[in-house]
Amino acid sequence: MADLTLTTFDWVPEMPRGFVRDLRVRWALEEARLPYRVASVPFRDRSAEHFAHQPFGQVPWLTDGDISIFESGAILLHLGERSDALLPTDPHQRNEALKWLFAALNSVEMASLPWSLLVFSGESGGTSAWTRFDGFLQSRLRHMEPVLAGRKWLAGPFSVADVLMADVLRLVDRFDGLAEYPACRDYVARATARPAFAKAHADQMAHFAAADRAAAFPT
Amino acid sequence: MADLTLTTFDWVPEMPRGFVRDLRVRWALEEARLPYRVASVPFRDRSAEHFAHQPFGQVPWLTDGDISIFESGAILLHLGERSDALLPTDPHQRNEALKWLFAALNSVEMASLPWSLLVFSGESGGTSAWTRFDGFLQSRLRHMEPVLAGRKWLAGPFSVADVLMADVLRLVDRFDGLAEYPACRDYVARATARPAFAKAHADQMAHFAAADRAAAFPT
Repeated sequence: MADLTLTTFDWVPEMPRGFVRDLRVRWALEEARLPYRVASVPFRDRSAEHFAHQPFGQVPWLTDGDISIFESGAILLHLGERSDALLPTDPHQRNEALKWLFAALNSVEMASLPWSLLVFSGESGGTSAWTRFDGFLQSRLRHMEPVLAGRKWLAGPFSVADVLMADVLRLVDRFDGLAEYPACRDYVARATARPAFAKAHADQMAHFAAADRAAAFPT
Repeated sequence: MADLTLTTFDWVPEMPRGFVRDLRVRWALEEARLPYRVASVPFRDRSAEHFAHQPFGQVPWLTDGDISIFESGAILLHLGERSDALLPTDPHQRNEALKWLFAALNSVEMASLPWSLLVFSGESGGTSAWTRFDGFLQSRLRHMEPVLAGRKWLAGPFSVADVLMADVLRLVDRFDGLAEYPACRDYVARATARPAFAKAHADQMAHFAAADRAAAFPT
């Protein structure tokens, strides 16, 4: 049962720390109290072995015995099938969780990722591309706001849909994109107050801090 | 068993015809030979009822008895659980299908959608936003090319992962974005040569053509 291994980078720059996508998997594993170990691959030199597990050369991936899974959504679906702390067994709640899991990725992150790329590169203002992609994100948040004003968690009980949606909105919040969406902001605060999130976040920060120490004091 | 209803718009402009996302669901239903009916909602006036099924006011959604599902990925996962013509039962093939289903949406479409928004709005050239988003798409296609050069379908047998990946790449191909990726282009040609795709595509075109006739000759 303890045969779960999460693979992430050995090191990343300061900026993405706390937001590397292995966090989604750590968070879900902590919620489900599933034992796992963490392995590292080089950030700088990505091997053929790395691409065999993650064809785009990204992280994370998870191995469960002889099954290797990439894409945070696919990993969370797999873990959801192992634990009803992550995916409710009631058919209607399960359906809610699955559709919101996809919506977090393909409706909300689809809009928040281009937006955050432009913000991060200092292009937030003026250009027609900014107007277009900021409008795209607002159109999504405007519809998320009444949804999240009306419920504590997306599917009834907390589920993998909340891990993904909260993590997606958390990055928007980092760049102050939720100022006009109080229900979205409250939802992020509620989700990130969970002990499993705090543990996952602290573990990711410690993982990359350890890499800095190893680089400063090579053996 | 014939209790599947796919809901799409009653009408859309010429440009998106043949690319409205109900096509993904039609295609999967045809592959699985599952009987279904098609219902319409107004493109222009989107009701509270519409938002109750699809919280972003988009299409499609599918009802299966008293279960209502939005997000093409969630719908295809649901249909995959009903038919092994869509999702293999072998655990390794099933895992391949599920991770590529998410990859189609969250790694490839995540990059192709901003790219196609810029192409569609005539912003394909010169600007730093174009350079950024074109580079983002190329980074994904560069990795898809060897994957698709090495296999006929993503999971072994044809699956829902191919419905999504082929539909995502088909829109890139429409804007001539696959010129340098022959394996991706061949894959799209191979997928869209399937009788189930041809039927789904013809049915979507006929659905919107019927709306034009109804508008021209109101009863």
